[in-house]
Amino acid sequence: MPEYLPTAPYRGTRDFLPAEMSVRSQVFGTLYEVLERHGFLRYDGPLLEPAEIYEAKSGEEIANQQLYTLTDRGGRRLALRPEMTPTVARIIAGNAGSLQFPVRWYSHPNCHRYERPQRGRVREHWQVNADIFGSDSANCEIEIFELIHGMLTALGASEDMFLVRANDRQLLTAALTGVVGVTGEQLGPVFSLVDRWEKYEAERLAADAAEIGLSDKQFARLGEVLGAGPALLDELPSEVKQASHLVRVLESGSAGLVRFDPLIVRGLAYYTSTVFEVFDTSPENNRALFGGGRYSDLAGLFTAQQIPGIGFGMGDVTLMDFLATHDLTPRPRSEVDVVAIPVTEDLYDAARTVVTRLRAAGLRASVPLELRKLGKELSRADRAGARAVVIVGQEEWDEGNVTVRGLATREQRQVAMDSAPAAVAELLSD
Amino acid sequence: MPEYLPTAPYRGTRDFLPAEMSVRSQVFGTLYEVLERHGFLRYDGPLLEPAEIYEAKSGEEIANQQLYTLTDRGGRRLALRPEMTPTVARIIAGNAGSLQFPVRWYSHPNCHRYERPQRGRVREHWQVNADIFGSDSANCEIEIFELIHGMLTALGASEDMFLVRANDRQLLTAALTGVVGVTGEQLGPVFSLVDRWEKYEAERLAADAAEIGLSDKQFARLGEVLGAGPALLDELPSEVKQASHLVRVLESGSAGLVRFDPLIVRGLAYYTSTVFEVFDTSPENNRALFGGGRYSDLAGLFTAQQIPGIGFGMGDVTLMDFLATHDLTPRPRSEVDVVAIPVTEDLYDAARTVVTRLRAAGLRASVPLELRKLGKELSRADRAGARAVVIVGQEEWDEGNVTVRGLATREQRQVAMDSAPAAVAELLSD
Repeated sequence: MPEYLPTAPYRGTRDFLPAEMSVRSQVFGTLYEVLERHGFLRYDGPLLEPAEIYEAKSGEEIANQQLYTLTDRGGRRLALRPEMTPTVARIIAGNAGSLQFPVRWYSHPNCHRYERPQRGRVREHWQVNADIFGSDSANCEIEIFELIHGMLTALGASEDMFLVRANDRQLLTAALTGVVGVTGEQLGPVFSLVDRWEKYEAERLAADAAEIGLSDKQFARLGEVLGAGPALLDELPSEVKQASHLVRVLESGSAGLVRFDPLIVRGLAYYTSTVFEVFDTSPENNRALFGGGRYSDLAGLFTAQQIPGIGFGMGDVTLMDFLATHDLTPRPRSEVDVVAIPVTEDLYDAARTVVTRLRAAGLRASVPLELRKLGKELSRADRAGARAVVIVGQEEWDEGNVTVRGLATREQRQVAMDSAPAAVAELLSD
Repeated sequence: MPEYLPTAPYRGTRDFLPAEMSVRSQVFGTLYEVLERHGFLRYDGPLLEPAEIYEAKSGEEIANQQLYTLTDRGGRRLALRPEMTPTVARIIAGNAGSLQFPVRWYSHPNCHRYERPQRGRVREHWQVNADIFGSDSANCEIEIFELIHGMLTALGASEDMFLVRANDRQLLTAALTGVVGVTGEQLGPVFSLVDRWEKYEAERLAADAAEIGLSDKQFARLGEVLGAGPALLDELPSEVKQASHLVRVLESGSAGLVRFDPLIVRGLAYYTSTVFEVFDTSPENNRALFGGGRYSDLAGLFTAQQIPGIGFGMGDVTLMDFLATHDLTPRPRSEVDVVAIPVTEDLYDAARTVVTRLRAAGLRASVPLELRKLGKELSRADRAGARAVVIVGQEEWDEGNVTVRGLATREQRQVAMDSAPAAVAELLSD
C-alpha cells in the first residue's frame, strides 16, 4: 500500500499548470473575441443533465458505452454531458417564448466521454460550440463558414493551412440514388460506408459494398461520385440543387470559404442537410480538426416547435495540435510585469504602497513574499518574466524616491515615487 | 407520461442565458484582471477526481452526504469535485520539484455538492479560488486581504459595503484556555460552539456550553471573550501574539484591511492559524460572502513535503447576491454594435463586405439572417442594443457608398464604403 495518494490526474483528464493555462487563455480569449465580433452571444448550462436526454437521441455508442452516469440520492439518473447540443436544445426549447429568433449563441463547456485515451482523445475535453438557431436560410451556412475562417485566422492561421470540406446530405442522397442506383434501404449503410471511405483500404471498402448489395459496377461508380469533388454538381438535377443551402453558398461571394466534397457525411444522426469538416492541410497533421452541420429540428425531444439550426463544436485537443503543427501556439505570458523590492523588512509597507500605484496604472505587480538578498530577488523577478523592478531603499524612500531598474538593460535611475508607474511603463514599452 | 422531456435544468443547477452570461462574464473578467494585476496565475484541473482524495480529508458531511460519486467501467471510484483544494494540493505535490515557491495561483472551477437547494445553496456553483502556496510569511496574509479588497472594489464596492473579519485559531485557543479555562478536551466542542455563536439563541448556546461542561461563569466569560473584538488582544500573552501572522498584519500599514474578531473560526478542518470571513455590511444581506484561511500542510495526502498556504474560495451565488444588494450588478452588454442591412437579397454579398470591414475595425457587427422590411430590421437592431446600422442600397452601392444611421438620433448620411467603419465608430462614441 502506498504511503501517499498518487498525484497523476484521473486517466484521460488533464492538469493545466499556469504556463499552459496562459497559452489556453490567450487562444480561447481570441476565439471569444472573434465570436462576439460576429454577433455570437455566450451562454452556459449545467454539467449534470438527466441521462435520458442523451439516451434518446445520441448515437448508440455514446449513450451505451461512453456516457458517465450516476444516480443521485433522490434516484434521479444523471449524466456528465458528453456534448453541448442536448443542453442547448433544452435551454432553447424552455425559453423559446421569450427569445427573438434567429439567435447566434456560443459556449465553452467541458464535456466528458469514457474513451480509451489516445492521441486526440481524452475523457474530459473543452469544446467551443457555436450555433445559429431558428433560421433555415443559407445565410446561416455562410456566417458559420465566415466564423470558422475568422476564428482560425485570428489565431494566426493562413487560409492555406486549413480547408473546410462541406457536403449536403440531400445532394449526396440524390447522387447515390440517381447516379449510383442505391436503393432507399441501402442508403443508411452506404452513408456509413462513405464515412469510412478515407480511413479504409480499397479492398475492405469493396467487400463492405458487396455486403450491402452493390455490384462491382456500382462500387466503381460510387468511387467516381465520391472522388468527383465540385464536378459532381453538374450531374445532379437542378431542382435538387435549387433546394440546397450549400449550393447557394457556392454561388455566393462566399464560395471561396468552402470546398464541396461528396466524401463528407458526418456520423452524427441529427444532421439533415449541410455537413462540414475542417481539415488541417499539413501533411504532418492531415486530419479533421472539427466539424458540424445543419439540423432541421433541434429541440424535438423537448417541444413541438420545430427549430432548425446549424453549428459546430471545436475541441481543444485537435485545435491545440493544429496550432502546434503550424507553429502558431502563443507563448505563455510573463507571470508579472514588475516587482517592487523592499531592501529591508521595515520597507514592506512602502513597497506595498508602490505596488498599489503600479497596479492602478494597469501593471501586473507584486512584492516578494519573503525578504531575500537583492541579487537573488533580481534573478527571481527575471525568471518570472518581469522586465522591470522598483527597488525601495530607506534613504531614497525618506526623500520620496525609489529606484527603477530595467532587468534586461540593468540600467537604473532614481525617480520620485509618484513617477514610478510612468517610468516602469516606459521601460516595458521599449 | 409526458410527451416531451422537461426543459428545466436538473435541480440545483442553472442555465445561463446570454443576458445573464454577459453580466457574469463582466464580473468574472474584472476579477481575473485584478488577480493578474496582483501577480496571481490561473491554473485548472479535472472535474473528476479519485473519490478518496475527498474522503480522506474533507469534513465528514461533505464526504458522506454531499459528494457526487460514480464508478467508471474500470472500477475506479470517482467524484465530481466539491471544492478545488484537494485538486490543487494534488497538482502542487506532483509538480513541487519544478515549481519555484512561493506561488500565487487562482482558478475558477465549477464544483458540485449534493445539497438541498435553498437561497445561496446550489448543487453546481462556480468558485474563484485564490491561494498562495509555499510561504509561511505574514506577507501572504496581507496580500490575500489586499486582493480581497482589490477584487470587491474593482466590482464597484466601497470599503463600507463589506468587512473582512479575521481570527487566528492559535490566538483563540490561547484565550479559551488562558482566559476562559477551557481544557484541552473541551477545545474541539467549544470551537464548534463558537462557529454557531451568531446563529443560535443565547439559551441554546448556554445549554450547549453546559453540556460541554462549562460552568455558568465560564459561559459568561466566553461571551465576553467572543464579544471583545480587538480588545481581546490586550489580554493575551505577548509570546502568543508574537507568533501570530494576524497580529503582524494588525501592526502593519495594512491593518485597516481587516478587523480582528474572535468569533470567526471556520468549520473546515484544515485551517491551522489565520481564518477569515468576508461579510456584507448591508442589513438586507447581513451574511458571510466567502472565507478562507491558512493551512500548514496543504498536500499531506500526496507528499512528505510540508507546503503551507493561505487562500479563499469565492462562490458565485453569494457574490452575485452581494452585487445585487448594493446595486452593483453590471448591465448586460448589447448583443451587437452595428447591423449592416442589405435592402435586397442581391445585396447580401455587399453587406457582408461591409461587415467584414466593420469587424476588422473591432466592432461587433452582423447581417440579418433573413431579409425583412427595413423598418422591422431597424426595430430588431434597436432591441439587440445596436446603436448604428449601415444600410446597403443598390444605387449607393453602385457608387461605392453606403448609408450610416444612428438608431437613437435617426440621423443618417451617405458615406464612401471605406469610411463606414470610421463613421460608425464616431456614432458609437457619442
